[in-house]
Order: sequence, then structure tokens, then C-alpha cells
Amino acid sequence: MNFKIFINKYLKIYSNLVTISTFLFKGFFVIKKIAINAKSASRELAIKTTSEKNAVLRLMAKNISASYKTIIKQNKIDLLNAKKAGLSNALTDRLLLNQERIEKIAEGVFQVSKLPDPVGEIIHQWKRPNGLQIKQIRVPIGLIGMIYESRPNVTADASSLCLKSGNACILRGGKEALHSNLAIIKILQSSLKQKNFPVECISFINNVDRKLVDEMLSLNGIIDVIIPRGGKGLVKKIMEASKIPVIKHYDGNCHIYVDQYADLKKALRICLNAKVQKPGVCNAAETFLVHEKVAKQFLPILIKELKQNQVLVKGCAKTLKLCDTQKASELDWFEEYLDLIVAIKIVSSIDEAISHINHYGSMHTESIISKNKACIKKFEKGIDSAVVLSNASTRFNDGFEFGFGAEIGISTDKLHARGPVGLRELTTYKYLIKGNGQIRT
Amino acid sequence: MNFKIFINKYLKIYSNLVTISTFLFKGFFVIKKIAINAKSASRELAIKTTSEKNAVLRLMAKNISASYKTIIKQNKIDLLNAKKAGLSNALTDRLLLNQERIEKIAEGVFQVSKLPDPVGEIIHQWKRPNGLQIKQIRVPIGLIGMIYESRPNVTADASSLCLKSGNACILRGGKEALHSNLAIIKILQSSLKQKNFPVECISFINNVDRKLVDEMLSLNGIIDVIIPRGGKGLVKKIMEASKIPVIKHYDGNCHIYVDQYADLKKALRICLNAKVQKPGVCNAAETFLVHEKVAKQFLPILIKELKQNQVLVKGCAKTLKLCDTQKASELDWFEEYLDLIVAIKIVSSIDEAISHINHYGSMHTESIISKNKACIKKFEKGIDSAVVLSNASTRFNDGFEFGFGAEIGISTDKLHARGPVGLRELTTYKYLIKGNGQIRT
Repeated sequence: MNFKIFINKYLKIYSNLVTISTFLFKGFFVIKKIAINAKSASRELAIKTTSEKNAVLRLMAKNISASYKTIIKQNKIDLLNAKKAGLSNALTDRLLLNQERIEKIAEGVFQVSKLPDPVGEIIHQWKRPNGLQIKQIRVPIGLIGMIYESRPNVTADASSLCLKSGNACILRGGKEALHSNLAIIKILQSSLKQKNFPVECISFINNVDRKLVDEMLSLNGIIDVIIPRGGKGLVKKIMEASKIPVIKHYDGNCHIYVDQYADLKKALRICLNAKVQKPGVCNAAETFLVHEKVAKQFLPILIKELKQNQVLVKGCAKTLKLCDTQKASELDWFEEYLDLIVAIKIVSSIDEAISHINHYGSMHTESIISKNKACIKKFEKGIDSAVVLSNASTRFNDGFEFGFGAEIGISTDKLHARGPVGLRELTTYKYLIKGNGQIRT
Repeated sequence: MNFKIFINKYLKIYSNLVTISTFLFKGFFVIKKIAINAKSASRELAIKTTSEKNAVLRLMAKNISASYKTIIKQNKIDLLNAKKAGLSNALTDRLLLNQERIEKIAEGVFQVSKLPDPVGEIIHQWKRPNGLQIKQIRVPIGLIGMIYESRPNVTADASSLCLKSGNACILRGGKEALHSNLAIIKILQSSLKQKNFPVECISFINNVDRKLVDEMLSLNGIIDVIIPRGGKGLVKKIMEASKIPVIKHYDGNCHIYVDQYADLKKALRICLNAKVQKPGVCNAAETFLVHEKVAKQFLPILIKELKQNQVLVKGCAKTLKLCDTQKASELDWFEEYLDLIVAIKIVSSIDEAISHINHYGSMHTESIISKNKACIKKFEKGIDSAVVLSNASTRFNDGFEFGFGAEIGISTDKLHARGPVGLRELTTYKYLIKGNGQIRT
């Protein structure tokens, strides 16, 4: 009996060791190999012309459109697995592809082919007294690692934006969308092949083991940047584990400050739009700050309208005296609700509003509603956010609304890219210096 | 006896626990508190005008100059400690401050006051069809953490560059220079005070416990970027430990490719300059790649001159057949010698040169010597380095040589800043959007 237990135990340890070492020696090297090949492809891609890249993008769009039946077939497997796993309706809907949605994906890829190519753009150029001519030009970053969740459209969106900006990418999608992603990837890669681009320009990790993400995040020096796309949980994990620089789309605790000099009719319209039009997105407003001089006039009307739009209102102590709302706690000021909930605070000055935002905000998007130019200027200078608006809805912090065309996300970082991340933000620069024999003395 | 041992052991454990908890609860919170105060100062600094900042810088320069005796007195303590610790002559010389060197430091600070202020610069501006006016403007990054080694001049250099670009900084210098650094910091902070700037704009960590560096590197969200300045060992450690984005000045394995269409007279002059003029710096050349069609004519002359300049030459197998040199190993191609040593390889094509550089190089600075425009273009496109020169010495990758004035380092990163990091690279941007009541539909 004892002997049997011993043998069983031994076998269990042994099999664990085999699993671990298989992973270590196979899994790791597989990812590294994929990344090295993708990096090598990135160098070929970097020197392709705009028209060569556009031709591939147009072909991809056409092929996605034409292959909708194949994609839907693979998508059905994912949907079936989702059902078995008991995925929520919202998540299942994110996963779902039908002909209309696939057409939209194809259209997105086609639109990217029409955007201006940032690669090669001269940012600055000047001549030095010693005759050296210095040019700062835009170049692709190199190899971009994308880690994302269940929406399969990201596979095509991210691939097309990376390709247009001359970057190879290595994609790791969520396990829920594996079959849909693989179907899309197959089409993208065969389009690359048809146009004589290395297929490794768009590389995909088809093993959904979470540990492979950690291996991917350790490939500093091969992968140049990681862009996570998904919920806060995913982004936080990646931030903490990554040895590679991350451009992240983190949280949007956005504010609207209704100044004492506000046009209250505009303020009402903008507050409602920023909260109600699409509450689940990062540029929706989460807190309204209202100057005490207009609070008595403004808040009852605003709160009535909010309630009519099914918004749950949480007010500060002063607000509670004016209107019937729930009480906001200290934690509410930090909250990104992403829902039909809003916190409201009455402030006694613009300075209090600025301090509140810089303390509790996530430095994403804030708007001031005011007719006073000095107040607007003060707000613009004092607020340390990616996008500062005046007299417009926070919902305008968006690549399409900026005129960038598609975007890969909205960066909450301060370095490299801030706000909407479009094609230009997917590039870096290098300096080209032309001399005539100059040496340093 | 046993009891005594027990008590001693107990006391030892107890005292260790006290030390650890004192550090954890005091050390950590001290750094965090310094950083929070510095961050708050950064918001006041961000809205100071150019002339206000310049006035402080001029006063700092004046005060450094005037206080040279105090600085020298404190520097002598550091020199004495260095002697006791048996520091090498080279390191001791880095530490040494005399009146002339202090005058140079003051002059450096004064020069920063004369550089153009990047803050507020409009990078792009455009109008959207819906009437929104979008402006992308330069703003300070916020709070910059500098971690550096024994040169006390960095204290003044970094502080003045951060101040001019509107950033607060939190400095952590090497323990060898502690007294000199503190003397300089005192002068800088009293100058801030005299001009009504918060002294926390330039914060200094005077506790040299290495663990405090780890604590500093964990303050993601308070400190916006870390800039290490020092040897590769220091930079590597910081890269690995930091939870904050790092702009790093890492290694410079720079190449010169002498093309088959090179003006060999110029090639000779440039190769010698790039290797010999200042071999210990990052933009000195470490490997020469020579096209086989000119190798026979060029290499004997080059190698003779190199040897006359005390350079140790390591050649590839083909080079060995032409000249008497040591044999280069595979590892030599990766090496940043920072010394009078050079590796030489004969290549059979420009493509081989490009592949070699992209494989072995550190993507810092490379130069092609050629009269052929197509070859220059191919090299410029194919090389993935921060600075690509033609017909000039690699030594020109430098903030002063670019006309940036002072620089805080030369970035080997691809994101945010690449190549010389001057005032502009110490800024980020934000978007200001002016509307007239626009909402999203």
C-alpha cells in the first residue's frame, strides 16, 4: 500500500516535471522564435513603399469580405465553447461575428489603406554651421506585441494599423475568440503572401496558455513595445509583468467642470451627452464639478434630466442639500463607473475644481464649460490630462473624432503617445545626417 | 550558557526586525513623501513663465559661482572618504571639484537659461468639420527621477534642464559624491526660494541606502519617468527593477561601413576620428566594416595608422590574411570596448554590412562612407539605429553637435526619445480642444 502511494506520488511529480520542462524548453523557445522571425520580417516591412502596403491592405479587405462564410463557421465554434463555458451575454455578443460585422471589419481595413502613411515624414530638418545636414524622420517602431481580449475584430484592426505604419506585429488574442482569430489571421497572412510580403509581418500566438504571455513580456530587445487592449485587469497585469515598454489604455475617470461663467444650456446638453450617450466607454464623464455660484440654478435641472435618463446620481454633502441624490463617498471621486452612474460635487472655485481633478482623476479627458477666457486658460494650464476641452463633450477624445482615422487605443501614458494612438503614434523617429567628411575636433 | 546564546540570538533577530521595520515604515514613506511633495511642486512649476524660469537659472549660476569655496570644502570630505575607501584614481578624478570645474558647472546652468523654452510650443493644430479646434501643445512631463553615479556636476546639469523644461526632479546621486551634491543642492534650493519657486522642484534623496532606489522605482503614478545616468551596470539594474518608464542611455556599439564607393581619404580620417579622438564615449566607433573591393587598398593604411595611435586591432579571418592583427571572436562583434580597441570585418556587400549592424549593433550610431547616393539611401533605410550618418564621424551623435544645447543623455530607446535627449525630449504633449457646445451624436 505504502509502496503504491510512493509510486503514485513519484509519477505525479515526474509528470509535473515533464509538463514544466516541456513548457520551459518548448513553449518559451516557440514564442522567442516567433518573435525573432517577426522582428526579421519587420525589417523587410520597414522598407516597403506606401503603395505596396496599401495594395496588401486592399487585398486583405477584399479577402475578408469574400471569406465571411469561413469566418462565421469558425466563429460558431467559439460561440459554442462560450455557451459551454457559461460566458455572459455581453461577452458572447462581443464574440459574435455575422456577415454585417465581418463587412465592417473589411471596411475598417480598407479605410486604413486610404490613410496617409506617416513613415518617411520629415519632422524637422536643419543645417549645422559645420555643414552637416540633419533630418529627423518618422520610421516604424519595429515589432509591436498586441495582447487583447475577446473581440475578434481587434485581430484585423491592429494588424492593419501596424502594417500601414510599417510595423510587424505579434498578436495574442483571448482564448474565447481563438477560432475566429485564426480564421482572420489565415486570410491576412495569405494576403501578405500573395503580395510577396513575409507572412511573419502578422504573427499570431495560437497557444492560449497564460504563461506564454509572461514569456512574451520578457522578450525585451526583440519586441519593441507592448500594447494591451482590454479591461483594466488585463492592462494592470501586463504593466506589472512587462519588461518591454507598454503603451497603455488604462482608466478614464473624466470630469466636466461647470464654471460660474458657464452657458448653462450648453452645460446641460454637454453633461448629458458625456454621461448618457455611451456610458461604457473611457471618454464618458464620471464626475461633474459645479461652481457654487451656479449650483442652485443648474443642479436641480441637471439631476432631473439625469434621472430621466436612468442615471444614478451620487452627490457631495452640498449637493444633497439642494437635491435628492445618493451620498457620494471618498471612493466615488476615484471611480470610473463605465455605467449610468455619476458623482457630483459643488466646488467653491476653479482652483478647487483643478485640484480635485489632478488629485482624483486619471488624467484622461476633462472639459470646462465657461464663457470666460481667463478661466478656460487657467483650466487648460492647470489640468495635467491628455485632452483638455472647453465647451464640448469629453466624448470627443477619440481617434476618429480627431481625424486620425482608426486608432489602436487612447493612451493614458505621458511618454511617447498621449491621447488617441493612431498611425503617427505607432512610429518613432531616427536622425539622418549627411556630411562631407566632417570629423570632431 | 544555552540561555545566554538564546538571548543573544533573540536580541539579534529583534534588532534586525527593528532595522527592517524602521526602513519599511520610515524609509519608504520618506521617499514617497518626498515624491508626492515634488509632484505637487511640479504642478506649480508647470505654469511658470519662461522668464521666471530663466531668472531662477541665472540666479543659480551666480550663486554656484559665488559659493565655490563652500562646495570645495564639502567636496574635500567626499575626496577624503574616497581615499579611505580606496577609490581608483579615475573615479576620484570624476569626483574632484575645483574652482575651474565649479565655474564650468555654473556656466552650464547659465547656458540652459539661454536655450529656447519648449513648453507651450504648438506641435500641430487643426480644425474639425464640426468646428472643434484642436491644438497639440508641448507640456512638461511632470516629475523626473534621476539616478546617477559619482559626478557631482550631474546634480546641477540635470536640475537646470528639468527646471527649464518645467519638470520637477527627484535626484539620487552616488554615495561617493554625497557631500558635494548636498552643497550644490543647497545652493539650487535657496535660489528657488529667493525667486518664490517651491524648493521641492529640485528634491534630493540624501539617504544613500540602495534599497531606497528600489522604493523610488516603485512609485509609478507619482514619478513619471526615470532617467539613469551612469555605467551599463547601473542602467541595467534600473531597467530591471523599475515599475516606472525609463529613458535610458545604454550601450553604443557604433559602426562605420566603408563602402566600395568610398572616398578612402575621407574614410581614413573619419575612422581615425571616430575611434581615437575620445575612445571612452558612447558615440565612438567600435567596429569598422570594409567592402572587400577596397579592403586590400584601404586596410593596410588604416591599420597602420590605428596602431600608431595605440589602437589594438582585432580582425576577421579575411583581414588577418591582409594585415597582422589579433583575431576577432564572435563576441567581439557585440562589444562596446570604450577603449583603444577596434574590430574590423571585411564584408562582400552593403547588404552584409546592414545585416551585421542590425544583428550585432546596439542601434546607437552608424556611418556609411560612400560617394554613391543609392548606397547611402539603402544604408539609411536598412539600418535601424537612432542616428545614421553618411560621410561623417559617429562622434556627432551629441546634443551640442545637434545644436540642442545641453543634453541629459543619448537615448538608446525607441519610444518617446531617441538619440540626444535635450529640453524638447524632456516634454510630452497634451491636446487642447476648443468647442462651442459640441456633443457627440
